[in-house]
Amino acid sequence: MTGVRAVLLDLDGTLFEDRRPLPGALATVQRLRASGCAVRFVTNTTERSHREVLEDLCRMGFTEDAEELYTAPVVAAKWLRREGIDRVVLLVPPATREDFASLAVDEEHPEAVVAGDLGEAWDFALLNRAFRWLRGGARLVALQKNRYWQREGELVLDAGPFIAALEFAAGVEAVVVGKPSAAFFAVAVDGLGVAAGSVAMVGDDVQNDVGGAQRAGLRGVLVRTGKYRPGDEQGAIVPDFIVDSVADLPDVIR
Amino acid sequence: MTGVRAVLLDLDGTLFEDRRPLPGALATVQRLRASGCAVRFVTNTTERSHREVLEDLCRMGFTEDAEELYTAPVVAAKWLRREGIDRVVLLVPPATREDFASLAVDEEHPEAVVAGDLGEAWDFALLNRAFRWLRGGARLVALQKNRYWQREGELVLDAGPFIAALEFAAGVEAVVVGKPSAAFFAVAVDGLGVAAGSVAMVGDDVQNDVGGAQRAGLRGVLVRTGKYRPGDEQGAIVPDFIVDSVADLPDVIR
Repeated sequence: MTGVRAVLLDLDGTLFEDRRPLPGALATVQRLRASGCAVRFVTNTTERSHREVLEDLCRMGFTEDAEELYTAPVVAAKWLRREGIDRVVLLVPPATREDFASLAVDEEHPEAVVAGDLGEAWDFALLNRAFRWLRGGARLVALQKNRYWQREGELVLDAGPFIAALEFAAGVEAVVVGKPSAAFFAVAVDGLGVAAGSVAMVGDDVQNDVGGAQRAGLRGVLVRTGKYRPGDEQGAIVPDFIVDSVADLPDVIR
Repeated sequence: MTGVRAVLLDLDGTLFEDRRPLPGALATVQRLRASGCAVRFVTNTTERSHREVLEDLCRMGFTEDAEELYTAPVVAAKWLRREGIDRVVLLVPPATREDFASLAVDEEHPEAVVAGDLGEAWDFALLNRAFRWLRGGARLVALQKNRYWQREGELVLDAGPFIAALEFAAGVEAVVVGKPSAAFFAVAVDGLGVAAGSVAMVGDDVQNDVGGAQRAGLRGVLVRTGKYRPGDEQGAIVPDFIVDSVADLPDVIR
């Protein structure tokens, strides 16, 4: 791949697993930087705050620069301010509430309902309140819209079904700000000072990382680590490049 | 309107209000019967069982024949048996559970999840169980898919948003068996022995009664009582006939 001037790197499953760097991951980041390539770290996680994820990255040796890390909640907060919205309600996991500190919580007249994975906290009363805020004109902003995830071998509802319920009830469409949304990649590319076509997104999720990046005009590189499963590259999304692991990335980007 | 050989009559808002017949409603039913027109009573209500609604109709003098009354749960039970399904889980209001007595409840391996308005009983745990039944291959059958209703002046989530959540989570589409679904009208017309085009559906809900009937090949007559609001007839759905109230119906059907 020629002409790549910046790289967005997915975290869990791409750079590290169980909070330990994958073989060659640290060297890859160093080689990319040495070659003049800008590096950003991007994740959809809402289990940990931006501050906590940055602490992990720092401890593992990837970066200590907060500006290099984009998490879905932080991107949501940036997106909301860019839209001129500053009064919100937060239906997000407790760990990520601090990422919205630049916005005011207003349960009377919110301009946006920000929703993420609340798990067991989703109930009729909360959905009904959210529905009324939306009827009152608030925008619906979703950190992600995944259908389900796996917990101890069992499938569990993720945020997506509850976002879908609110969309149906209020007759609105949520703005999804995590990967694979164009909004996410636009915010991450924005600070790089290069065109989207010169940016490569590298990740283990063919839908969220590769497909989302390609739709936003970036190049999508799939790694065969983390949640990658054989056959992922045979679907509708054709990665611009596939590498066995992030360790092979510097050889691919010239 | 000529050639009408059977009439389906909506209940609340069309034939009666607050469980009292509207002026001329009883006489209308008598005149229709006397003219050789078959009469059926159709309702989406899930607050009362078929037995209880029939008791109301009997007390008011409309009918005492159980075969003349179609409620959404009874239609659902008929539809399920017609599809060869007899093991179900019932996520329906308690009052209507008895309408499914012909089906076996099987929480291990249900063939269908039957869902209605559970109000506050919808929570994460129940939705998650329903999701797993659907992932296991059960069909999703909805008694209705309304977005919301009004309770003491406030809008409250109806069954629709929870059906939408399950559809999104499991990647399936619910079969809706109440009005305005074609399935509902097909079951109601089935026992009449006349073609759908010879049947008129009369109701106060331009979407559920008139629009649904027309899409199922019946004629749709709108009454200006109950939930009717001026302008209802100016939307995309053009009723075959409009009457001020059901009292005017016999003069319209020749």
